[in-house]
Amino acid sequence: MADIFLALLHHPVVDRNGRLITSAITSLDLHDIARSSRTYGVRALYVVHPISDQREFARSVIDHWHIGYGRNFDSRRVEALDLIEVVPDLDAAVAAAERAVGQRPELVHTSARETQGLSFAAMRERMAVEDAAPILIMLGTGFGLAPAARERADLALEAIRGTGDYNHLSVRAAASVILDRLRGR
Amino acid sequence: MADIFLALLHHPVVDRNGRLITSAITSLDLHDIARSSRTYGVRALYVVHPISDQREFARSVIDHWHIGYGRNFDSRRVEALDLIEVVPDLDAAVAAAERAVGQRPELVHTSARETQGLSFAAMRERMAVEDAAPILIMLGTGFGLAPAARERADLALEAIRGTGDYNHLSVRAAASVILDRLRGR
Repeated sequence: MADIFLALLHHPVVDRNGRLITSAITSLDLHDIARSSRTYGVRALYVVHPISDQREFARSVIDHWHIGYGRNFDSRRVEALDLIEVVPDLDAAVAAAERAVGQRPELVHTSARETQGLSFAAMRERMAVEDAAPILIMLGTGFGLAPAARERADLALEAIRGTGDYNHLSVRAAASVILDRLRGR
Repeated sequence: MADIFLALLHHPVVDRNGRLITSAITSLDLHDIARSSRTYGVRALYVVHPISDQREFARSVIDHWHIGYGRNFDSRRVEALDLIEVVPDLDAAVAAAERAVGQRPELVHTSARETQGLSFAAMRERMAVEDAAPILIMLGTGFGLAPAARERADLALEAIRGTGDYNHLSVRAAASVILDRLRGR
């Protein structure tokens, strides 16, 4: 079964008007997506931010749960947060994944706005093949990945569809649904 | 297709040691679960809290996005938050759902700890039958529903399984995965 990596990007992403921004790291994203990652066997969750103060903030969230009160309070949070690596850009995430499994991961792009792309069923089959390449799924914060990030992807997954036209899952919800479709039992 | 209602319970739920508690409402739960609810065609999301100050807090979160800055900033949030009704207990949620669709919903219980229960595939089939009863899915905050809440359920859904034994999705992630399994395309 192909290894899955996640990269949570805070840049380059867009705001509600499609303008290029750098979003702030929120601790709840780290907790929620780390717990979903641990549940579905993700190898590592790369938290990507170009600003060193923001990367320090992310590390402080993780460290809080490693010492004293945090660790005793809930060891399952530590187990999830241990999947996180904080890196400055996508290239660093790709390099770290390659070091971990000895093979460059395929970059997979998912977007709320895509109407085309590989189906989740096809992706799941593809990942079940022996020697399938590891994948790194790029998740955009804010209002989604900027074109410059999407263009880096080797392949696109179909959009998550619910029952109608409304399609605005939070990045936390989208991450869990993507992982469940690719890895859920 | 059977109507789906959600009830997000803050009491009776348990803490990490299984003790009965009343948890606090968090605005992010409202936003995330409302957006997932709108995406998957949920009829209403009942936010259940026994303390009136907490119910007022929930209403203030919703109102914030209905007026001035909030509404102009992101109308899609308003569209999602409009699904929320704030009620004091489960009975009030059930009564509101019954008023909305003219039929008492079946109460469905999901738990991270269950190893048995109806499969999601079976539930989905059951809901596709003509004249299928509406369902109200009970979601527990904190460390999950207390026994007193679980005993109210008419039927239990199987636990969400990932790839291993770790199974600690946030309530926000669990809600989205449940809805995707029951309603996703």
